[in-house]
Amino acid sequence: MTTAKRDTYTPETLLTVAVRVFNERGYDGTSMEHLSQAAGISKSSIYHHVASKEELLRRAVSRALDALFETLDEPGAVEGRAIDRVEYVTRRTVEVLMAELPYVTLLLRVRGNTTTERWALERRREFDQRVSELMRAAADAGDLRADVDDRLATRLLFGMVNSLVEWYRPHPGAAQEEEERLAGTVVRLAFDGLRTHR
Amino acid sequence: MTTAKRDTYTPETLLTVAVRVFNERGYDGTSMEHLSQAAGISKSSIYHHVASKEELLRRAVSRALDALFETLDEPGAVEGRAIDRVEYVTRRTVEVLMAELPYVTLLLRVRGNTTTERWALERRREFDQRVSELMRAAADAGDLRADVDDRLATRLLFGMVNSLVEWYRPHPGAAQEEEERLAGTVVRLAFDGLRTHR
Repeated sequence: MTTAKRDTYTPETLLTVAVRVFNERGYDGTSMEHLSQAAGISKSSIYHHVASKEELLRRAVSRALDALFETLDEPGAVEGRAIDRVEYVTRRTVEVLMAELPYVTLLLRVRGNTTTERWALERRREFDQRVSELMRAAADAGDLRADVDDRLATRLLFGMVNSLVEWYRPHPGAAQEEEERLAGTVVRLAFDGLRTHR
Repeated sequence: MTTAKRDTYTPETLLTVAVRVFNERGYDGTSMEHLSQAAGISKSSIYHHVASKEELLRRAVSRALDALFETLDEPGAVEGRAIDRVEYVTRRTVEVLMAELPYVTLLLRVRGNTTTERWALERRREFDQRVSELMRAAADAGDLRADVDDRLATRLLFGMVNSLVEWYRPHPGAAQEEEERLAGTVVRLAFDGLRTHR
């Protein structure tokens, strides 16, 4: 008899454990044995829920990607001036990052060694491309600076946004207010810069 | 007899190989055996040059840290208005990142598992703190927006700057012109934002 606890996991709660371990050890450095130890259930119990480690990765990065892509279909992202739509998507990206922190963190660390990782990288590029096109439209309308290539601008914008995963840690309690304040700060800096305009 | 080539390394050229392997495999995932294979010399030959894997890490991150800290003592960083000094340091940080790409990449990926890694993290915080103080001075002078906490602004600024290590790859040839153009773009976006000011 092992001391493994009774398997009360759902695919969803098992995913929470797996994402934590993936972020701690790296996806490549995580074995089913590690997941079994972290979850406190046997490997065969894990295989009862999912077919493979890669399936857990796919579910995890899908959760982040779905949340990000959904923002592109929200009214704020499809109606109105392009500049306002870029700004809306930026704000929502920050909010998704904070709300789905472990999942987005994992997505941003994906390397490309497996089919699932290459698919995730491809989807990320697609998302960046969609935002890049919005940037182009805003620049064409004269609202975004035209002296910066829109792909480069998108990269630098997401460089700033994505860097939040390195240090942002939610404080239980004041979460929503804090998230809104931080998202607002990122948007102000990205769109209006650090300098005062007098 | 092994097929190991004759040891013609200097500590400096050995460092180049080590940094490449650290960035590919991660520092934790790299053994002296990996370094020996990558360099094509025996482990004992490596120990002829350095005392340990950790010494190689220390030399590598020191190279990045020294280059970054040196910018803080350059005339552009110590003379004139605080806003111009922050802008100068931002531009120079981008230039150092591009010129010392593998070393800065390694520095930014340091985790904190060993004494050397914790020392490197401490030095990085010290650098951020120095820039943060310049930001405060520029905000006090009315040149930087006062509605954003200077530590948060520093984090977001370096989030944008440091994201370059994820995708910037130098093109042999047009290197210097390209570096200057990119550094200029980062500074413009960071200080004046994406939006046109009409």
